[in-house]
Amino acid sequence: MHYRTHHCGELRLADAGKEVKLSGWVQISRDFGGLTFVDLRDRYGITQLVFNMDDNEALCEQARGLGREFVISVEGIVRERSNKNPNRDTGDVEIDVRVLSILNASEVPPFTIEEESDGGDDLRMKYRYLDMRRDPVKEKILFRSQLAFETRRYLIDQAFVEVETPVLIKSTPEGARDFVVPSRMNQGQFYALPQSPQTFKQILMIAGFDRYFQIVKCFRDEDLRADRQPEFTQIDCEMSFVSREDVLQTFEGLTKHLFQKLIGIELPAFPRMSYDEAIHHYGSDKPDLRFGMMIRDLSSMARGHGFNVFDQAEIVAGIVAAGQAAAYSNKDINKLTDWVKRPQIGAKGLVYVKYNEDQTFKSSIGKFYDDAVLKSWCEAIGAVPGDLVLVLSGEKDKTLKQLGELRLEMGRRMELMDPNDFKPLWVLDFPLLEWDEEAERFHAMHHPFTAPKEHDIDRMLSGDHETMKSLRADAYDLVLNGAEIAGGSIRIHDRSLQEKNFDLLGFTPEEAREQFGFLMGAFEYGAPPHGGIAFGFDRLCALMKGSQSIRDFIAFPKNNTGRDVMIDAPAMVSKEQLDELGLALKKAD
Amino acid sequence: MHYRTHHCGELRLADAGKEVKLSGWVQISRDFGGLTFVDLRDRYGITQLVFNMDDNEALCEQARGLGREFVISVEGIVRERSNKNPNRDTGDVEIDVRVLSILNASEVPPFTIEEESDGGDDLRMKYRYLDMRRDPVKEKILFRSQLAFETRRYLIDQAFVEVETPVLIKSTPEGARDFVVPSRMNQGQFYALPQSPQTFKQILMIAGFDRYFQIVKCFRDEDLRADRQPEFTQIDCEMSFVSREDVLQTFEGLTKHLFQKLIGIELPAFPRMSYDEAIHHYGSDKPDLRFGMMIRDLSSMARGHGFNVFDQAEIVAGIVAAGQAAAYSNKDINKLTDWVKRPQIGAKGLVYVKYNEDQTFKSSIGKFYDDAVLKSWCEAIGAVPGDLVLVLSGEKDKTLKQLGELRLEMGRRMELMDPNDFKPLWVLDFPLLEWDEEAERFHAMHHPFTAPKEHDIDRMLSGDHETMKSLRADAYDLVLNGAEIAGGSIRIHDRSLQEKNFDLLGFTPEEAREQFGFLMGAFEYGAPPHGGIAFGFDRLCALMKGSQSIRDFIAFPKNNTGRDVMIDAPAMVSKEQLDELGLALKKAD
Repeated sequence: MHYRTHHCGELRLADAGKEVKLSGWVQISRDFGGLTFVDLRDRYGITQLVFNMDDNEALCEQARGLGREFVISVEGIVRERSNKNPNRDTGDVEIDVRVLSILNASEVPPFTIEEESDGGDDLRMKYRYLDMRRDPVKEKILFRSQLAFETRRYLIDQAFVEVETPVLIKSTPEGARDFVVPSRMNQGQFYALPQSPQTFKQILMIAGFDRYFQIVKCFRDEDLRADRQPEFTQIDCEMSFVSREDVLQTFEGLTKHLFQKLIGIELPAFPRMSYDEAIHHYGSDKPDLRFGMMIRDLSSMARGHGFNVFDQAEIVAGIVAAGQAAAYSNKDINKLTDWVKRPQIGAKGLVYVKYNEDQTFKSSIGKFYDDAVLKSWCEAIGAVPGDLVLVLSGEKDKTLKQLGELRLEMGRRMELMDPNDFKPLWVLDFPLLEWDEEAERFHAMHHPFTAPKEHDIDRMLSGDHETMKSLRADAYDLVLNGAEIAGGSIRIHDRSLQEKNFDLLGFTPEEAREQFGFLMGAFEYGAPPHGGIAFGFDRLCALMKGSQSIRDFIAFPKNNTGRDVMIDAPAMVSKEQLDELGLALKKAD
Repeated sequence: MHYRTHHCGELRLADAGKEVKLSGWVQISRDFGGLTFVDLRDRYGITQLVFNMDDNEALCEQARGLGREFVISVEGIVRERSNKNPNRDTGDVEIDVRVLSILNASEVPPFTIEEESDGGDDLRMKYRYLDMRRDPVKEKILFRSQLAFETRRYLIDQAFVEVETPVLIKSTPEGARDFVVPSRMNQGQFYALPQSPQTFKQILMIAGFDRYFQIVKCFRDEDLRADRQPEFTQIDCEMSFVSREDVLQTFEGLTKHLFQKLIGIELPAFPRMSYDEAIHHYGSDKPDLRFGMMIRDLSSMARGHGFNVFDQAEIVAGIVAAGQAAAYSNKDINKLTDWVKRPQIGAKGLVYVKYNEDQTFKSSIGKFYDDAVLKSWCEAIGAVPGDLVLVLSGEKDKTLKQLGELRLEMGRRMELMDPNDFKPLWVLDFPLLEWDEEAERFHAMHHPFTAPKEHDIDRMLSGDHETMKSLRADAYDLVLNGAEIAGGSIRIHDRSLQEKNFDLLGFTPEEAREQFGFLMGAFEYGAPPHGGIAFGFDRLCALMKGSQSIRDFIAFPKNNTGRDVMIDAPAMVSKEQLDELGLALKKAD
């Protein structure tokens, strides 16, 4: 049986007169007495069907009985429409239907299958197959397929090899929590699902593959924040005989290519910024460069005027909300103060200086600082009449971070973040190690395989504890509109340096050997210098399409408790299955 | 730092005189007194380096100290070789080295990094990164990457969409054993890893995606036979509004394209054979068509001559080993008899008839059958003088299967199975259900979602138990050289038919709803007719390259007990990890 000669997005005026067969879903059926019109939909488009009471009453009656989302097949003649629909590729024609077969009926769908649906989130997730019939969701899934293919084409043209690394690997306590998989054949032992193919791609470099990539599922058993998924997809890449510059050039090239090819955007050369600069000027290691509003240090100007809070602060710094002086009433300022004092931000208070259009000043700390001082602040920070200056103070790291959040909030309020404006940025020279005050230990800022900058190697091998805090890593992030879309580093390829790094991270030699012995062993058999990067593929899809949420770019996402509500997983398994695995469930206390 | 201007497979005579920089591994270093030659290797090839004692003694001494697999970087001048090596792309040139840097030393590798290695299987698996430096292994991994990309290119050109389906899904007891993943956020519940994305791809058809594919990891917790892996890769495909013919045409097209593009083989139109025909003529549902030696039924001729064994057998059937009469002594026949009596084959005995070159006959059952009868057998079975006829008898299904095995064994012995000869075949019309005598229940021959042939639907809905055994499925396998490389079917898209099938398979309505309710629910909202196929990607790689084993086409394979011996997984996890998951290990009894 042939179900169709054409699909529903295909017929044009030039096809008029042809006998055709189409199959698809009933989008809508409209009864105009003598005529019944049906919009027939498939992945490719919508074609109008016409049933004429005068020609064939029985057929027309049958058409009137068609409900939304019925699956039908029709045979008929293509003809020119009298009232053309210029918004539809097939809008010049309709099908004069002669034969109608109902291939499958449909219950009334629980929400409308339209551009905008009336279904809530939960309902749309449960009936994901109906939600995916809607154009906005369908287009995102199709976009993802195109983006993946174009990524592969580009990288393969650049001599990269796609190598599949294993999914059943070994659990390592470093980093986020692993999902584990009990082994039946090796009872009491577990595989882990990879958080990334990091060690395998390094092994592939040692094996001589020179340029590797993989679009690959990775897994993290985290408490899910909004828009985090327990399984996610990376474009994972590694290259041998490269320095940082080679990696940046290669993946700037990939990114530009994808933007050009998929959404027709020509990105200019990507600016670069050190981690320190990003923190100082944007209070974030992923600055959103769609707008300025840089953070300026006012510490030296702010001290010595009798305002205790500023005198005792490690830093006093501010941002300029251009043209916002008049827009913020006292009440608005109070609300904004509440906003920065929320626990998620954690500021103790907010100081403002209004540089009014009439060149007067108004400030919450006017009694400590006269207008001349406030004017000098405004000049230093780049404010002009009409601007609102917002100032925070306190411990340096925290204050900069708070100002970074405040900057983003003001950017949102002032609508400075156009989702179709794309501002990429390389952030470079991250710290190698982060000191964890609570645990009294170092964590790897990137991961334990990241190389220190070459000029820091001697300091790393011989320095004291304080020195370690100042080491810089040969690591880089690609930031786009305030989101990290890729991160990577040049790796350690020397056994003794890797051992030193594990030691700094608090591994005993035994732990290091047990978990990463195979990699350190491999370093002894001719490991080349190498480095790489991984793109968050779900996020890249979302950003390129100007979307806030990654969820619609995933065909079957999980909800915030890690459940797939469509299939209802996870679920109980049988006692026999657990017995075979040598496992028992613990009773809840 | 720049590590290279060219790679090691790139330089030609036209480059002579250029200053270049190369990096790679020392394949071999040869000291000829005044001159030291080093073969420098990377993924792309080998380039000869020359160090001259007269030019730079210190440098030459340094080169002499280079061990195998050292990673080095050299700068020098390209020049024409006096003794060219025509077997190497770079064989016309060598590098007169001026600067040598050792980037990393290497221990002496535990086996040779050559075309043929002296390392045993276990050692090569443990040091997989060294084994992968060997050309034969490297080439297979590169081939796999090309095959995957070409598959994607072809399918995307045919309007297929690659959609990633989830890895964390729900365990279903049907089929092989699932790997399960305990959920921390939903304690006591488990995800399962997919044995295939079957239900998700059907959901994608219901969602209207029309043509789906995915190159995807699948998982099966089976006791591993040689050459089975707990994780394996499929080219998974599904199409809507298709009948069998559409699917066969589409994937015959894909297969031909891949053979043509990757290995330059033009496959002719694929022959087709019903399951029944395959069983009767080849004793297998995956006939190897590289040679004939078809099974012929001799039952009617064999009965009534007083030979009890044949008189009581459900079937007597044989094959012809052409030209083998003289080659098989009595001793050889005895050995072959032992072979068919092995438990893996399970025949009770073997009857032979030698049709000698001089037109005499010799047979193990000569006293029951005179030469005239034996001659009539030979004529019926197509034997000519010089041929050896091998006959088995007994229960029909078993005897045909045994003859199928014997046929393959004779094919091997007679060297009729050239790995570079490719004989594809579609096997069609499989039984829908298999009766399991022991469990007293039906199993799905393909899987529970396979549609019966359209003309069998009424019999399926209303027939008795015996009728069920005769139902045929709209299922198909693509067989190549005796191996199944793909299998698929037209699917059920009607809820009541699906419910009937679950019922036949012994599911209670509650079990069916619990496990597959989402799919049966989806059938109620406009499910289109659909069908698909899945290729075993690892096997396809191996067959196309004429290899018996899939293992070398997998970068990091597991051994027969499911262990990755390189990383040493699976492994113990900490008590804290188990506690978080609400799990306890059971003590061994």
